[in-house]
Amino acid sequence: MSDHNAIERESGATFMPRFDEKGLLTAIAVDSANGEILMLAHMNADALAKTRETGLATFWSRSRGALWCKGETSGHFLKVTEIRVDCDQDALVLIVTPQGPACHTGARSCFYRRLTDAGLEPV
Amino acid sequence: MSDHNAIERESGATFMPRFDEKGLLTAIAVDSANGEILMLAHMNADALAKTRETGLATFWSRSRGALWCKGETSGHFLKVTEIRVDCDQDALVLIVTPQGPACHTGARSCFYRRLTDAGLEPV
Repeated sequence: MSDHNAIERESGATFMPRFDEKGLLTAIAVDSANGEILMLAHMNADALAKTRETGLATFWSRSRGALWCKGETSGHFLKVTEIRVDCDQDALVLIVTPQGPACHTGARSCFYRRLTDAGLEPV
Repeated sequence: MSDHNAIERESGATFMPRFDEKGLLTAIAVDSANGEILMLAHMNADALAKTRETGLATFWSRSRGALWCKGETSGHFLKVTEIRVDCDQDALVLIVTPQGPACHTGARSCFYRRLTDAGLEPV
């Protein structure tokens, strides 16, 4: 990447997503109501396009190798109200209104445990 | 991974970090004062051990191929007060007290732009 591109990517107004070698960005979903981090997943270009088109968070499932509209089976969609981009444009924050628990375990957030010296405990 | 391991990993009290094929976890740093997402980076086992030992967020720099204690050159350390783990234990949330701007650009957070149909604009 040229210096010019690096500067434009960091400080410019042009969206220049930097997909990794697998064609993925990292996306963090946060609850618009309280800023709580709900989940982390990945997006390829199709998932991002679908998310922008439909307003529903859509990811690339690395385990299934398929596009995955979060909530397509559970009904627990994440309605996207805003997308933020980080300095080097390889990560996104999705500000969302969750239509149910974001975690497949039924938890509101996937981050329901904290790490202690003794192991994990509920938050 | 056996089903037993999958269940233990998701609902148990045992920390069983699931490093990717490059030996990395994804870590999101959030400000303890207001829950704002500050930055996203990666940790290998050494970075995680160092973070737990020192209380200062330490990552694996993929571009430099080296351990990187955030703030080691700028003085803008991230003091870690809590580490949360997600359901499948491949992502961490670091709740931190930042000692200065988290972004190398000088911004408080790396996520200082939103995506619009016209491109990027300041948050």
